[in-house]
Amino acid sequence: MGPVTGTGRRLLADAPRVVNVGLELFAETLAMLGVPAVNVDWRPPAASPRVAELLARLEVQRAAIESANAEAFARLVNGTPVLVDCRPAREALELPDRTVLHAGPPLDWARACAPMRAAVLCAIRYEGWAANDDAAAALVADGRVRLEPCHHWRAVGPMTGLITPAMPVLVVENRAHGNRAHATINEGLGKVLRFGANDDAVLARLRWLHTEAGPLLGAALRAAGGIELRPLMAQALRMGDEMHQRNVAASALLARALMPHVARVGDRHHAVARFAEFVAGNDQFFLNVAMAAGKALADPAGGVAGSTLVTAMARNGTDFGLRVSGLGDRWLTAPVETPVGLYFPGFTADDANPDMGDSAIVETIVVGAGGVAEARAVTEEISEICHDEHPHFRIPALDERGVPAGIDVRRVLETGIAPLINTGIAGKQAGTGQIGAGVARAPLACFERALEALAALAEPAP
Amino acid sequence: MGPVTGTGRRLLADAPRVVNVGLELFAETLAMLGVPAVNVDWRPPAASPRVAELLARLEVQRAAIESANAEAFARLVNGTPVLVDCRPAREALELPDRTVLHAGPPLDWARACAPMRAAVLCAIRYEGWAANDDAAAALVADGRVRLEPCHHWRAVGPMTGLITPAMPVLVVENRAHGNRAHATINEGLGKVLRFGANDDAVLARLRWLHTEAGPLLGAALRAAGGIELRPLMAQALRMGDEMHQRNVAASALLARALMPHVARVGDRHHAVARFAEFVAGNDQFFLNVAMAAGKALADPAGGVAGSTLVTAMARNGTDFGLRVSGLGDRWLTAPVETPVGLYFPGFTADDANPDMGDSAIVETIVVGAGGVAEARAVTEEISEICHDEHPHFRIPALDERGVPAGIDVRRVLETGIAPLINTGIAGKQAGTGQIGAGVARAPLACFERALEALAALAEPAP
Repeated sequence: MGPVTGTGRRLLADAPRVVNVGLELFAETLAMLGVPAVNVDWRPPAASPRVAELLARLEVQRAAIESANAEAFARLVNGTPVLVDCRPAREALELPDRTVLHAGPPLDWARACAPMRAAVLCAIRYEGWAANDDAAAALVADGRVRLEPCHHWRAVGPMTGLITPAMPVLVVENRAHGNRAHATINEGLGKVLRFGANDDAVLARLRWLHTEAGPLLGAALRAAGGIELRPLMAQALRMGDEMHQRNVAASALLARALMPHVARVGDRHHAVARFAEFVAGNDQFFLNVAMAAGKALADPAGGVAGSTLVTAMARNGTDFGLRVSGLGDRWLTAPVETPVGLYFPGFTADDANPDMGDSAIVETIVVGAGGVAEARAVTEEISEICHDEHPHFRIPALDERGVPAGIDVRRVLETGIAPLINTGIAGKQAGTGQIGAGVARAPLACFERALEALAALAEPAP
Repeated sequence: MGPVTGTGRRLLADAPRVVNVGLELFAETLAMLGVPAVNVDWRPPAASPRVAELLARLEVQRAAIESANAEAFARLVNGTPVLVDCRPAREALELPDRTVLHAGPPLDWARACAPMRAAVLCAIRYEGWAANDDAAAALVADGRVRLEPCHHWRAVGPMTGLITPAMPVLVVENRAHGNRAHATINEGLGKVLRFGANDDAVLARLRWLHTEAGPLLGAALRAAGGIELRPLMAQALRMGDEMHQRNVAASALLARALMPHVARVGDRHHAVARFAEFVAGNDQFFLNVAMAAGKALADPAGGVAGSTLVTAMARNGTDFGLRVSGLGDRWLTAPVETPVGLYFPGFTADDANPDMGDSAIVETIVVGAGGVAEARAVTEEISEICHDEHPHFRIPALDERGVPAGIDVRRVLETGIAPLINTGIAGKQAGTGQIGAGVARAPLACFERALEALAALAEPAP
């Protein structure tokens, strides 16, 4: 079962087994496309002989692996993320001049997809390092502007995931472990930089974020002494959010919690009103907060020798990258899928770009949540590839059981169940922006590479 | 099966059949008390011979009744409530001086419970009509202060439900029918007037509401051109609210929608911050909005000749009052129950006051919502006493079916299933405030009286 790189329609031809984790939009999508939304009786094909052999080799180390996984899982689920600040990336990340961070594993500029290229060039114009796209492209081509993954800078970014020094970033501190992670402020929907849009409206919004919204939010968070995210996330999951494509509950709860502090520190009335309006108009406001929280929670779970649990999944529009605790910071990559989903009016699957974004960090910390009967069945299935139930994120629709957490590379390959990622869909043409939302599967090839590496570490070949 | 007027413990002795409509708190309560939370196989006792005879008499008119109910139901569920303003009751209701509105059917002062008495006297002090409780009691006793039900003044109030001329009231306009309904701003939890608390902190909060919060909210709503409530309520129901004891989703969504307007019209920074803080600290902020919306939706459904659908349920701490569409504004009353529930630390069922409040107007418009397995079973059961499913309020946990709506007096008596009301519990001692939350059943005696009246109208006795 190799990676699928075609369009949604080609995906469908591959007899998909759809793991819908509670977002009714997806169930509707699939119903429209005639895909059976859940087929829990479907059995994956047997693993390849090579995978079976590697799994057997790891089986000898089972006790050590389980112990390592228990440690990594405990770190992953018991963190206490607090949203403490919002400051320019230059300060918060000590990000040097002429550096552009992007989503996913390291990007080969020559293979970069059109919306990623458009966004990078737009970000360079936004910083004033070049006056137009041609000049900006020259800077990247000859290395005068450096591209690096957000994940290498204690940060995550949705879709194209761009971060440059002037952009304000949310700062989430994991107080249980002392580490911090960062993400930009979510720009809203439609024509936005993260979906590869690059016109004047995009630049104007970015400038407002760094001149007004970011400083106001930062001052409010510092005055508040930070906002505890774990209880807020736990409550939002109970209210039907899944933290990736459905963040309305968390966004509204956070907006409500923030506004007293924003109003108190705001020294200009209209700035407070504009901020409140921006937040009120964006049901995905919490996505970037959830992502920074996810990175803050997942980072301490990395580097546990022998652990087979996933600590990051990220896509750059060309490649999918996987990180596994026992393999430290190494990326296991494979070509990324194109999502299958629902499109805004005027767009079809033919307009879709392959999957992008660090947002799958959310699926690293909490896999699936939802109330409908289908989602319950699917959550049962996804639990097959997870280490355990989350001790703090319990939901009524699962009869107060925790949502599955801690994807285990071994279980993914034993069952053939690839993690599903709820995702936005960017237009493949530069400048288009978001054209829909859907689901994408993590390529099994990444997990096979991780298994090879884990087996080699566990028991070096003679 | 007569009304039960004892304590929660006595209620339990009567072999309760608990219809938990999705609030996990209640399921936990009942589990703690050892009550089987749902027993859908339990069959009610056969109706009395008199009830059976009256039902048979109405059966002759079935076609006319069904037609009347279809009309009343359509009015009930197709209204479009919009939160348009917040103004003092003196202006919005043209409420005369020295008038105190209270929850429930008309109140006999001599039989009034202690928290209701304490709240009325406190409200008189708040208005400055008397300097102390003794003087205030004298004003009521000799009729110099007039007590009237909120329901008689196009208004509803939670618990004691007090409204006096200076209090700001939320104004909800049902644009489909042109009528308006009103409710005060929810005060928050704990020691508050609506639960019969009456100390200086209660008065200080009431003064802040009428001097600062009410005018600010009113200006914001007028600037916003009103806020549409039906879509907001529909979304909140999808997020697990049931609009009575669980309003966190609607409260957060409304706060988020209000704040841009509040910030824009606020001419003093600290007033905006105080308002934002008040709203952020009150998960029941939306309750009073839902109640005014409920009254705005239910009023046009009243007065449909022959209709057996319920248009109001209200309690004043002594009596339960029922209104039925085909009986117009007439109250059918019986002694009210004491709720069974969970208590705050330091309180028990022995401290509980009988049930109070107009808040059961919420159960008039939408009965039960919730995601857990028990709630689904219960929603199935409660649908036995309802006219139909709500066309606009659909929830994922019911596989996108509408929640039951339109309680039918005939079905209540045919099945013996009394509507259950999610409710706060006031301390029976004056000045205590809220001591818990739980459920209370509407007394079947009210429905029997309604049936007598409906049968008399349908077919006058020879």
